[in-house]
Amino acid sequence: MPVTIRVPMCDFVIFGGTGDLAVRKFLPALYRCDRDGRLPDETRVIATARAGLDDAGARDKVRGELLRFVDPADSDEIAVQRFLNRLSYVPLDASDGESWPLLVDRVRTRSGGIRVFYLACAPSLFGPICARLNEQSLVDDQSRVVLEKPIGHDLASARAVNDAVGAVFDEPQIFRIDHYLGKESVQNPLVTRFANTILEPLWNSKWVDHVQITVAESIGVGTRGGYYDTSGALRDMVHNHLLQVLCLVAMEPPTHVDRESGHDEKLKVLQALSPLTPADVDAKVVAGQYGPGLVDGAPAPAYTDEIDKGDSRTETFVAIKAEVRNWRWAGVPFYLRTGKRMDRASSEIVMQFKSVPHPMFPGSEGPAEPNRLVLALQPDGGMRLHMMANKPGPGGIRLRPVSLDLSYAHTFQLRLPDAYERLLMDVVQGNTTLFMRRDEVEAAWRWVEPILTRWVDATRPPNYAAGTNGPTAATSLVDRDNRARYERQAA
Amino acid sequence: MPVTIRVPMCDFVIFGGTGDLAVRKFLPALYRCDRDGRLPDETRVIATARAGLDDAGARDKVRGELLRFVDPADSDEIAVQRFLNRLSYVPLDASDGESWPLLVDRVRTRSGGIRVFYLACAPSLFGPICARLNEQSLVDDQSRVVLEKPIGHDLASARAVNDAVGAVFDEPQIFRIDHYLGKESVQNPLVTRFANTILEPLWNSKWVDHVQITVAESIGVGTRGGYYDTSGALRDMVHNHLLQVLCLVAMEPPTHVDRESGHDEKLKVLQALSPLTPADVDAKVVAGQYGPGLVDGAPAPAYTDEIDKGDSRTETFVAIKAEVRNWRWAGVPFYLRTGKRMDRASSEIVMQFKSVPHPMFPGSEGPAEPNRLVLALQPDGGMRLHMMANKPGPGGIRLRPVSLDLSYAHTFQLRLPDAYERLLMDVVQGNTTLFMRRDEVEAAWRWVEPILTRWVDATRPPNYAAGTNGPTAATSLVDRDNRARYERQAA
Repeated sequence: MPVTIRVPMCDFVIFGGTGDLAVRKFLPALYRCDRDGRLPDETRVIATARAGLDDAGARDKVRGELLRFVDPADSDEIAVQRFLNRLSYVPLDASDGESWPLLVDRVRTRSGGIRVFYLACAPSLFGPICARLNEQSLVDDQSRVVLEKPIGHDLASARAVNDAVGAVFDEPQIFRIDHYLGKESVQNPLVTRFANTILEPLWNSKWVDHVQITVAESIGVGTRGGYYDTSGALRDMVHNHLLQVLCLVAMEPPTHVDRESGHDEKLKVLQALSPLTPADVDAKVVAGQYGPGLVDGAPAPAYTDEIDKGDSRTETFVAIKAEVRNWRWAGVPFYLRTGKRMDRASSEIVMQFKSVPHPMFPGSEGPAEPNRLVLALQPDGGMRLHMMANKPGPGGIRLRPVSLDLSYAHTFQLRLPDAYERLLMDVVQGNTTLFMRRDEVEAAWRWVEPILTRWVDATRPPNYAAGTNGPTAATSLVDRDNRARYERQAA
Repeated sequence: MPVTIRVPMCDFVIFGGTGDLAVRKFLPALYRCDRDGRLPDETRVIATARAGLDDAGARDKVRGELLRFVDPADSDEIAVQRFLNRLSYVPLDASDGESWPLLVDRVRTRSGGIRVFYLACAPSLFGPICARLNEQSLVDDQSRVVLEKPIGHDLASARAVNDAVGAVFDEPQIFRIDHYLGKESVQNPLVTRFANTILEPLWNSKWVDHVQITVAESIGVGTRGGYYDTSGALRDMVHNHLLQVLCLVAMEPPTHVDRESGHDEKLKVLQALSPLTPADVDAKVVAGQYGPGLVDGAPAPAYTDEIDKGDSRTETFVAIKAEVRNWRWAGVPFYLRTGKRMDRASSEIVMQFKSVPHPMFPGSEGPAEPNRLVLALQPDGGMRLHMMANKPGPGGIRLRPVSLDLSYAHTFQLRLPDAYERLLMDVVQGNTTLFMRRDEVEAAWRWVEPILTRWVDATRPPNYAAGTNGPTAATSLVDRDNRARYERQAA
């Protein structure tokens, strides 16, 4: 039986309440939390947007969206109706002071409890909305603000947003959401590392040969083309997802994983990343853009056709050879890789350990392949440990690779909750573990920025076909170190 | 397809050729090697015994025994006939010099090649037979002698046997067979340790809390009662099987696993075993003898009824808390346990690692249980790694034990060769890896002897019921250290 954790009394106020993120992600997640009995009876959901809707119209619209974005198995008319009853709508032009009193009145009809302000609007509005909330005295100690990425498009712009939001909210009240970090399977590496003793003695440059972190998507940009083309894979994925995963892998054991000490340790990793000179960018970073190809047997268009912008230079793929220069990791390459329209959707961390120092079975058939621990994040969370074993049979030892496997879904036989559900409940409970702290965001920008700078004038012809493994130059990043990219073996 | 390794030209001469070991183990194994094409065409099998058989009579007898002891699936009339054609019979009273010329002539009709003398007779004949072989000039550099256990019943008697055999054969020509060590699954720990890097940093007192080595049988003494009652579990199992397995677990990495250096490292472990004073024997060694009980739902007799000897004081169960006092293992208990008529047949090595040094998930449900690596030896070889994982679900981290499993039989889908097949081929090839060297045998006796001495006047009433887990005092050996005996969880 699933455990139900009820959260404290709480109102949600959504800016951009009829926008894409709100209806695709936020409201379905909140609905599921409600259906599972995790919202108190009094909880209200106040949507604001410029659209001229009333409560009934908003409820109709949200009902329609829930039917689209909630798995039919999760739909329950009584639960849907209860959820819709929580929902009210306030028309608001956030940048127009005249339109605020209605929202202020609506929020203020209840005092006490937690208020979550969810900003699913243009980042340029983050600062002004926070200032207005403050001006209208809607912010107190119990308030939290949730910011959807991107937080800036470089260090300076991120600082500007953080300054503006930070002028109103204290850092522990600010939740920079990265839904990728809310996925259970992304949290699992923390548990794997710190609820087990056996990995700790291995987890350093003495025993680890290199690390591969891959976040591969098979989808293209879809409906996000407009945003994506101004961002690219480096800003959209490397700056946040990949660097956060790298932090989870590389960080020192914090005193507590769920408090500031966890953020402190992640920050230390970001600060220890070896800075990239322009020459490093040329040598250690590979960008790509997909041309036309075949995905799952069906033709897929080139990126420039998908967004209908023939001269786009935006990268849809990035591979980086990074290094964490500290006592634990110096000399261990971290190969990062992310792309759209790859041959398959797969996110994983591969720790490859050093080879045996001395071949002890000289007459044996088969080489002793290096051990590898694979932490699978997507699409199915799991763990796979590649070891060598003795193949039974007559006449001496025959070394063969074997794998010890664990699938979370198979082991626990549970619906894996959507990342947003988890994150929303963490917001209410004030748990910032899975959110990026300001200094982390800025340290990540600081490391990424030399790449952005070096790329300013880059041309970007398509250099990999949709449905493939990315540009050959990316494979060379690994190959030329006499290493091999991890490919999952057939089971 | 199985790999076929053909051995050099070779004759086998069996002393005790119609006895129990020869017909149950040796000849069926040799037959299977022959059927698999691993014996050269010229190979002869010369059986000797006091029975008055001729070649035809011996072939008839062996054909009958093969039908009993070879799996019908492995039977093949053409192969059986070919094997029987190799077989000849020479009547011999080994202790009577007059009866030797016939055997000498038979052996000498061929010169060159390897001669394997297999001694499946009373240990008291080992010395005299070797002396006679020497006297008749049947021993050369290419000869090997295979001794079935027991090699002595204490240190002095083992030395006497080893001296007598060693006067004729050099140590590398002497193969003290322990069929248990020939089982593939017993060799696997060597590969697990030394063809993988990831265990080495864990494999010491810093990370290992304790080790459990269990060789449990569900059968009783069966037809071996006469021998067994003069031996007991300590001599029959601990002195050889359990201490050899302990050596495989505890030994330093040898230069080569299959040469003298492997024996050297095992010897070092035996020599590092903390000697047992009489007080240690009382405190750290538990003996048992089974009374009547239920095995797999059927009534099973008491040991004394099974051997029809009401006053037997022979132990059918031994548990020992041992310690290897060296740099790597000091302070780590090795809990050894073996018994007959246990609740199930199961042999395994359990490495239990230390607990996490600091609980990093204070709000989490469920304790972080210690990691354990289980190397299953019998009945099915395999590996199981017990770790902690995060159970998916809303609201924080929930630690749950999970296991990563590997079954050799499932992975490799092969018939596991009988231990004897492997060992016989090793004998022919002169590979002593899986046999006990003289100094190992004697070091093992040296460590075991204080227990024998202390037990001389022990009474031994039945203290566990057949089909159970052994005496409660054995469980206390582990419990009182605030540890728990490993019990396999339901899958």
